[in-house]
Amino acid sequence: MIYREQLTIETRGRGTHEITSQVQHVVERSGVDQGLCFLFIHHTSASLIVCENADPTVRHDLERFAADLAPDGHPSYRHDSEGPDDMSAHLRSILTLTSLSIPVEGGRCDLGTWQGVFLWEHRTSPHRRRISVTVTGGRDAS
Amino acid sequence: MIYREQLTIETRGRGTHEITSQVQHVVERSGVDQGLCFLFIHHTSASLIVCENADPTVRHDLERFAADLAPDGHPSYRHDSEGPDDMSAHLRSILTLTSLSIPVEGGRCDLGTWQGVFLWEHRTSPHRRRISVTVTGGRDAS
Amino acid sequence: MIYREQLTIETRGRGTHEITSQVQHVVERSGVDQGLCFLFIHHTSASLIVCENADPTVRHDLERFAADLAPDGHPSYRHDSEGPDDMSAHLRSILTLTSLSIPVEGGRCDLGTWQGVFLWEHRTSPHRRRISVTVTGGRDAS
Repeated sequence: MIYREQLTIETRGRGTHEITSQVQHVVERSGVDQGLCFLFIHHTSASLIVCENADPTVRHDLERFAADLAPDGHPSYRHDSEGPDDMSAHLRSILTLTSLSIPVEGGRCDLGTWQGVFLWEHRTSPHRRRISVTVTGGRDAS
Repeated sequence: MIYREQLTIETRGRGTHEITSQVQHVVERSGVDQGLCFLFIHHTSASLIVCENADPTVRHDLERFAADLAPDGHPSYRHDSEGPDDMSAHLRSILTLTSLSIPVEGGRCDLGTWQGVFLWEHRTSPHRRRISVTVTGGRDAS
Repeated sequence: MIYREQLTIETRGRGTHEITSQVQHVVERSGVDQGLCFLFIHHTSASLIVCENADPTVRHDLERFAADLAPDGHPSYRHDSEGPDDMSAHLRSILTLTSLSIPVEGGRCDLGTWQGVFLWEHRTSPHRRRISVTVTGGRDAS
């Protein structure tokens, strides 16, 4: 069977936004016991990551790393129609994930102990972001 | 159901090559109404990205970014049997995508407004590249 | 149908560990002829890559590239509770893959000639790593 829901996330600008529990709720509503959960983000300036979810300094360091790797307003960018964070947001998206698949076991995403699923907003201003969550599989363990 | 086709893309050397419409055509031929579309590129020196598809300066800036991040012919590379763009092509591939899953809704890949799917050729000379497109799902919305 | 197995890999510390044959064996045991094989690594300090599998200098160069891109013990990191390779391991994971989907054809993962699937251990000390391999599809070509 196939079950789909869309998540709409209102971001507060650049930063990571944990969506693990929202994804788990979709899996619960799907009724799938064993299968797979597929995430897809419908944007090119926000992306998905699986990241350590216990210590917030990880995301702080990640943000700083990305700011150094793909700086806002770099003089080499030609694409800046939406501001200095326009091209850097595309680069950060391309270096991370647009889609992700997670095994479902016992009616839940089988994530590792420290794994959280995050939407990573790369634009500095708040945006409304859309993520599709598709769950496939069977209602009983095969 | 499962439907598969292979795309063969003749690249003209390094650069992005949009394949969105070719992927959409495979989905149409599959007859799947709701499901998922899986892409896989069978190479380690070309990769897949989802990128803004409206303004070509995005891909220009992306190309320059990659050239700075993983330069051709870097003196630290030991692997250069196929030339200065050999190891850099592997690095660029590893930092981007080998596989991708996209939700199918209403018989089409449900991409965001500005999302395009691209094969990114990392070698400087033309190559023939193979991408598998697998579509799964049902013919009627569940 | 859905078939799942877990691979447990004992790493010897930082470096790439080829798992292609182990994944192929899971696909064989699944009995799936045509379908998809999904990999998921249940960690945030080790990741998956698809890499050229013939010349070991590729992985040597990759390791050096990663060490330069996300150095251990960088003074800007706040997250260092498990040592200088703690935050760098998270960054290297985020820049590569947590999940991967590979087409199955004729009872095998349809990989390109030079493609190998690797677990990439990012911590310097040995770790036990868990990877889920899920195979879906049909026993006869559709």
